[in-house]
Amino acid sequence: MAWFMPREENFFELFERAAENANLAAGELLELLEKFDDVRARSKRIKDIEHAGDKITHDTIERLNRTFITPMDREDIHELICRLDDIADSVDTTAHRMVLYRIEKPTEDCKKLAACLHHATGVLVEAMPLLRDMKNTAKLRERVIAVHEQENQADQVLSHAIAGLFQNEPDAREIIKWKDVYQEIETATDRCEDVANILDAIMMKNA
Amino acid sequence: MAWFMPREENFFELFERAAENANLAAGELLELLEKFDDVRARSKRIKDIEHAGDKITHDTIERLNRTFITPMDREDIHELICRLDDIADSVDTTAHRMVLYRIEKPTEDCKKLAACLHHATGVLVEAMPLLRDMKNTAKLRERVIAVHEQENQADQVLSHAIAGLFQNEPDAREIIKWKDVYQEIETATDRCEDVANILDAIMMKNA
Amino acid sequence: MAWFMPREENFFELFERAAENANLAAGELLELLEKFDDVRARSKRIKDIEHAGDKITHDTIERLNRTFITPMDREDIHELICRLDDIADSVDTTAHRMVLYRIEKPTEDCKKLAACLHHATGVLVEAMPLLRDMKNTAKLRERVIAVHEQENQADQVLSHAIAGLFQNEPDAREIIKWKDVYQEIETATDRCEDVANILDAIMMKNA
Repeated sequence: MAWFMPREENFFELFERAAENANLAAGELLELLEKFDDVRARSKRIKDIEHAGDKITHDTIERLNRTFITPMDREDIHELICRLDDIADSVDTTAHRMVLYRIEKPTEDCKKLAACLHHATGVLVEAMPLLRDMKNTAKLRERVIAVHEQENQADQVLSHAIAGLFQNEPDAREIIKWKDVYQEIETATDRCEDVANILDAIMMKNA
Repeated sequence: MAWFMPREENFFELFERAAENANLAAGELLELLEKFDDVRARSKRIKDIEHAGDKITHDTIERLNRTFITPMDREDIHELICRLDDIADSVDTTAHRMVLYRIEKPTEDCKKLAACLHHATGVLVEAMPLLRDMKNTAKLRERVIAVHEQENQADQVLSHAIAGLFQNEPDAREIIKWKDVYQEIETATDRCEDVANILDAIMMKNA
Repeated sequence: MAWFMPREENFFELFERAAENANLAAGELLELLEKFDDVRARSKRIKDIEHAGDKITHDTIERLNRTFITPMDREDIHELICRLDDIADSVDTTAHRMVLYRIEKPTEDCKKLAACLHHATGVLVEAMPLLRDMKNTAKLRERVIAVHEQENQADQVLSHAIAGLFQNEPDAREIIKWKDVYQEIETATDRCEDVANILDAIMMKNA
């Protein structure tokens, strides 16, 4: 038993590191938008964080291949780490688009969306250690609900942002660019919700 | 045995209510487009239907947590109720965009898309009670095929609509708006197809 | 035992045919873009290939319904054949859009994206026969990585293409059209990656 335990523990640690990595990426994006200096350098830093996330995902899958007894269904481990990875991917895509589209100035709505995302990833950081003990079901469910709330709020900010674009932006090319940027941040919050739904499903199976 | 049966029955009832709710939302959208009066009030009514759907989904997941023996795989119950919920979500998003984009007059293509969606959700309403008896495989498969047909038809209407936009609409901003509205309705028919595919998979497992 | 084996073998053959079909579709798209003559006739040929794919998918699901012992999880067979089918679907959508949008001349970036897709589907054609023997794990993983590489390259071509559009194309309507065409080809490479991920998951379960 003792022989297996340390290996099992490692999956939880990997989930925690993946959530922290997603939160780090979201934090960097928020800072990029708030300061908007050295956008290329900041974008490069986010790319590095995204790569670190790929490494965590890769390590998790390698470990999964070498482990006979897993603390939860193999498929759930695979799905959970992939969706956590997606969050940093979307943050990276967002930062990359800011550079690609030669965005000159971030909007207030953009900052608000990034703040929702940062908040949602922070909740995932809190949620992950709760997976270690299935007695934490109630606490875990609170976090799941909190992620859903952030995603709903991001939806509302997105609505407001898109309506504003059509009313105030005469250049259709700018509308296309900004819609893309806004929607990618919103996609990242959707991925947070996917992670929350997987946590929900894991709880359900172990209830 | 008798102790479990009533609880099991309830899942089927919840699926039926969720399909009826999706159908109700699609019907309201079709009426909104056909009459196009009181758009805000009608949009608000669709939002209420969407919230009723969230409640059904929430009740289903709560019940899932309290039930030891389920009439089908827990994961399938979870997936089925979530995808049914997505339909009313997309209908709500569509109506919300009509308001957000300050659409002044619906197009014929838009009404046709909504009619496909209404039809597809109607087929789901017919399909759900068939889940109660796995001997209904043949009838259920007919409904699955009927949903696929509606989705194919919606695809064709969407193609026609998009081609028309590029040929007849000089304002790129209007093209962006209408593409979004059309695609969201088409997404709702895709979700109907997802539900049909889950029904297919459930049949397969129980064959 | 001998009675079951031939039937099991058939699933592998169906996967191989589905991958070859996706590769055929991608090859036709590449040729359409390189020659750009008879676009409607070529688009029609791609539609026929897509329908052949639907037939393979349908046959697979029918067989699944009639088979008691499957060589891998039923759900994985279902998922694998559906995602393989999606590739030809996206190729068909791309060709269809070229016609629908009355595209007059393909771009270099468009050809590069189609080349990535053709390459990725070629790797899937190589990967499928490896599924027949789970001792091929290492070789299969090589192919999975190769598909990921093509998907990454397609991402980079897409970035370059989109940046070029915003810098060089003054007509927002053309930007909308090309973004759609580019993104649909990129979506097809994403579906190749989905197939690779399913192969990964199947390997994992059988490790």
